[in-house]
Amino acid sequence: MAGEGCCSGGLRLDPAVRADARRRLLSVRGHVEGILRMLEDDTVYCVDVLKQVKAVDGALDKVGALILQSHLRRHVVTAHERGDEDRIVDELLELLKYR
Amino acid sequence: MAGEGCCSGGLRLDPAVRADARRRLLSVRGHVEGILRMLEDDTVYCVDVLKQVKAVDGALDKVGALILQSHLRRHVVTAHERGDEDRIVDELLELLKYR
Amino acid sequence: MAGEGCCSGGLRLDPAVRADARRRLLSVRGHVEGILRMLEDDTVYCVDVLKQVKAVDGALDKVGALILQSHLRRHVVTAHERGDEDRIVDELLELLKYR
Amino acid sequence: MAGEGCCSGGLRLDPAVRADARRRLLSVRGHVEGILRMLEDDTVYCVDVLKQVKAVDGALDKVGALILQSHLRRHVVTAHERGDEDRIVDELLELLKYR
Repeated sequence: MAGEGCCSGGLRLDPAVRADARRRLLSVRGHVEGILRMLEDDTVYCVDVLKQVKAVDGALDKVGALILQSHLRRHVVTAHERGDEDRIVDELLELLKYR
Repeated sequence: MAGEGCCSGGLRLDPAVRADARRRLLSVRGHVEGILRMLEDDTVYCVDVLKQVKAVDGALDKVGALILQSHLRRHVVTAHERGDEDRIVDELLELLKYR
Repeated sequence: MAGEGCCSGGLRLDPAVRADARRRLLSVRGHVEGILRMLEDDTVYCVDVLKQVKAVDGALDKVGALILQSHLRRHVVTAHERGDEDRIVDELLELLKYR
Repeated sequence: MAGEGCCSGGLRLDPAVRADARRRLLSVRGHVEGILRMLEDDTVYCVDVLKQVKAVDGALDKVGALILQSHLRRHVVTAHERGDEDRIVDELLELLKYR
């Protein structure tokens, strides 16, 4: 799952952002568990589930946005100085492709 | 969380779709836990986390698409017959707004 | 371009929505022409163009949303009564797929 | 429409990308005119129009992706060297916000 992008160049996710992302993902996990409980009810209504799925999606997007912002500020704007700009730009375009 | 949309009309999420959604959400939960473990590593690289967040987003979108498809087939195309078409359309537009 | 979806069943875009869509698309065309003029300037800045492209995208999405809303209200909620619900749902899922 | 982002720093859209964007936007304009003609037909079917709107949306997204790619390669990865990284990152986050 991890690792293949880790790097001799020492690019690391900022500790404060990492901690914030963990907090938010713990909340996402709790929210997913809430939907699992909803789905035990055989009278549950489609749209009520869809609203919760959409809310989790929004929470995940927020996690992604925080990490992306940190990556831009710390790693992307300095890529030419480090000399890894090709990799940095290709990775970013790949990530943004289906947003 | 649930309930407010549940309905005298008896609109219910199809049992097979409900079971499939549960299976997929259990996998989403496992994937979120995988990202939480990645985030314990203080050398983790931003883009590796972003790729996993994007993958979870895709899995959630698939859950939403399955439920939406079932809702369209079972409840939306029959709304005029039941007489609840205003509510059905308004709900749907609300859900699709920020996709 | 058109035609293949047109229909013995007589499903037609509502005249008021059609007129509104035309007005909005005329404005979209004008906006695209504005971007074309921007692009004649060899000092134009990437982000200024991207902002305009995004604005046009938003205007087009609004056109799509209006037509979708009308389609849901007039054709989708009555599909079971007409008996064309399979086609109606398949078309809709195809359209929503990459939104 | 233009101008406010143009820059003492001399950041300019790459001429080849500018030419490509113009070609593609001319095609977008033609496609919009095609939809306008469709909408003159009072029997036009909602979904046929929606398909064309979606196709234009896709073509516009491609224009945006090309300019974004050029902006990343030429201006973003060198922002720290120029010293305008705050502006560059803020602009980018603003643009990506609702994609």
